[in-house]
Amino acid sequence: MAADFSKFLSDELRVLAVELFAELRRSSFDGVGITRESFGPAESAAQEMIARVAAKESLAVECDRVRNLVVTLPGRDASKPFIATGSHLDSVPRGGNYDGAAGVVAGLLALISLRRLGIQPPRTIKLLALRGEESAWFGKSWVGSHALFGLLTEADLARPRFDNGRPLRAYLMDVGADVHAIAHGEQLLDPQAVGAFVEVHIEQGPVLEAKKLPVGVVTSIYGNLRHMEITCCGTAAHAGATPRFLRRDAVVAVADYIMRLDRHWAQWLESRKQLVITHGMLGTDPKEHAISRVPGAARLSIEIRADDYETLKGFHELVQMEAGMVARERGVTFTFDEPIVNRPAPMDPGWMERLDELCGKAGIKHMRLASGAGHDAAVFAHMGIPTAMLFIRNANGSHNPHEHMEIDDFLVATQVLTEALLLSD
Amino acid sequence: MAADFSKFLSDELRVLAVELFAELRRSSFDGVGITRESFGPAESAAQEMIARVAAKESLAVECDRVRNLVVTLPGRDASKPFIATGSHLDSVPRGGNYDGAAGVVAGLLALISLRRLGIQPPRTIKLLALRGEESAWFGKSWVGSHALFGLLTEADLARPRFDNGRPLRAYLMDVGADVHAIAHGEQLLDPQAVGAFVEVHIEQGPVLEAKKLPVGVVTSIYGNLRHMEITCCGTAAHAGATPRFLRRDAVVAVADYIMRLDRHWAQWLESRKQLVITHGMLGTDPKEHAISRVPGAARLSIEIRADDYETLKGFHELVQMEAGMVARERGVTFTFDEPIVNRPAPMDPGWMERLDELCGKAGIKHMRLASGAGHDAAVFAHMGIPTAMLFIRNANGSHNPHEHMEIDDFLVATQVLTEALLLSD
Repeated sequence: MAADFSKFLSDELRVLAVELFAELRRSSFDGVGITRESFGPAESAAQEMIARVAAKESLAVECDRVRNLVVTLPGRDASKPFIATGSHLDSVPRGGNYDGAAGVVAGLLALISLRRLGIQPPRTIKLLALRGEESAWFGKSWVGSHALFGLLTEADLARPRFDNGRPLRAYLMDVGADVHAIAHGEQLLDPQAVGAFVEVHIEQGPVLEAKKLPVGVVTSIYGNLRHMEITCCGTAAHAGATPRFLRRDAVVAVADYIMRLDRHWAQWLESRKQLVITHGMLGTDPKEHAISRVPGAARLSIEIRADDYETLKGFHELVQMEAGMVARERGVTFTFDEPIVNRPAPMDPGWMERLDELCGKAGIKHMRLASGAGHDAAVFAHMGIPTAMLFIRNANGSHNPHEHMEIDDFLVATQVLTEALLLSD
Repeated sequence: MAADFSKFLSDELRVLAVELFAELRRSSFDGVGITRESFGPAESAAQEMIARVAAKESLAVECDRVRNLVVTLPGRDASKPFIATGSHLDSVPRGGNYDGAAGVVAGLLALISLRRLGIQPPRTIKLLALRGEESAWFGKSWVGSHALFGLLTEADLARPRFDNGRPLRAYLMDVGADVHAIAHGEQLLDPQAVGAFVEVHIEQGPVLEAKKLPVGVVTSIYGNLRHMEITCCGTAAHAGATPRFLRRDAVVAVADYIMRLDRHWAQWLESRKQLVITHGMLGTDPKEHAISRVPGAARLSIEIRADDYETLKGFHELVQMEAGMVARERGVTFTFDEPIVNRPAPMDPGWMERLDELCGKAGIKHMRLASGAGHDAAVFAHMGIPTAMLFIRNANGSHNPHEHMEIDDFLVATQVLTEALLLSD
């Protein structure tokens, strides 16, 4: 079967892949890393680039009502549910070039390869370049796929962008999305019409790199529970004149809180629970902090990720309980914004086996692994669509400028994806 | 002697005091508290108000070369060193109305009272409204008095204002200070010409309030050692995909660091050391933080205050040692900016006795106490000038909008100050 693969992987396609990633980088380099804002200009530019290349290859190009890009290669039997592939084109601020974009480019190359070879797949294949996957911008993950299935709420649409406070709704209107339908929870894509969703994505952790494997088959996607803003309020006071026993110091209280949760996390890992805890944002208010003032307030975010909903809920209870303990001991208060919850999503067992098999036949070394990171694929899985993911090795993690993917590993994943899209059921 | 005091304290002066504080509040209320930026427009406006009232009372009004306001009442013997009183008019951002201003208004009322009563003091009295006392703006304390004695460095002049990065030098130029002379460390006031400096100030802690005493005589001013910015660098990484053991999480490292120093502080207090530790500023960089990113960097400030230089130095060694420990244990690095050091300043024993006596004779209950907060008085003391401070009770601490001073307590302090300024040696 290894020989079969090479037919999809001409040197021209390799060159095209390199060029596409280079152009993506050029158009969204921010001086430090890559910034493609969800529903912003750099994401739109990336989408237009993909659309331009697809159209040149005579692939059908359109946008759905969320303004996700859709590239279609018609199959032999139009009555059957289509197979979807794809990922997202947005990035976190100062992120890397491959998180999301690799899956879109892989899908594009698969379609171009089949088109150029004149192969008509058994089922219609649609490449989706989904918008607004990264929660960094609005605190909400996977906006493009959520909207597609009528899963965004009015509260979601009102979410302010973290840096300028402008709401998601305004950004959706900017790109011409059907905000009215989205706000009414209209299902813009019928899950019954989708036979499967297969997403290629770089691994965002170090496992494949450590195991020296080019690709991995994902078993499940961690769920997450997030508070964008936990506010700890104490009492501002003169630093020199307020003795320790009279202080209600918000910074020390928050430090205490973080360390308590960190100790719990270590204990839960020892007891074989699968979870990660992150406080990505922390700070006193620059408008009122001063070196000589006991800080009266501090804010932090928390994200809990786990492979299982009970673990998420259990640790969240601890998060609230410890806040109560610190509050009582240190005379501060903790206020939590509404949590955002994304349930864990197991991948389709049948599709996992198929991907294993395709790798095995082609002599591609691989492994199975869970995804600590969330993905659009989780939304498709939650909608009951058979869903699979293929990870590409990545040396330096993602959500940072040093993200690194070897083009050879990318092409291995593209090979496996192309074969998978040709499966007839 | 109690009867003597009432002569200085007409009802008109009480009304004037109330009006002055009300006008100061009106002209610098920021919506939350009081903001009079060091060398900024609100500080200048306050200075002009004081100058206007002084001039109306036929007191000599001028500015020195730092643009500190100087109000003079000539004494009988112009050959003797003058007695200085005063304080500052700037405030921290969102601070209170009395920190600094109370001492300037007290000095003004003393001079007005003597002028109206036609009393010529034995020695010339000068009221100094010193500029830029608060370190909140440029990280440097007591800029006005430091500059007066040629104690500012080029590095100090280059210090950026915390909120907009504009350097102190530019602000000095705005108000017309002699930046050339200041930059060359010229002594703009000869310490030999100053016979004493007596500063009235609100207490910034809760001691007088707790003891139900209107005023207190200060024994010494704590010194301080500050780092405006300690930077902790770890490695940014994807929150979901980076397991605990591979993280170099700057936020957890900083929390660990803060808690270690907090435990040391508690132990030092138990061993009778006099010090306070404050991290007034803390945060991840809003330009790159995200809820789903392991934070790669966090910054914090530290301020150590102590009544004794050995304690300052000792705790500072611990601050550096613990940074090394956390760095090794958590795979992060700590970088410290240049420390700013202000040595502790003992008050003049003779003047403490005089103030005790004046209070005693007038039947004013009082106590002696140290000042955890720093004051311009420390600079005068360091220059070898006999220096004294009188604290006014303040219910809610300072450096916050709830600072509170009873006008009766203020007038008690003003009485004592007026008497003190009439002492002939």
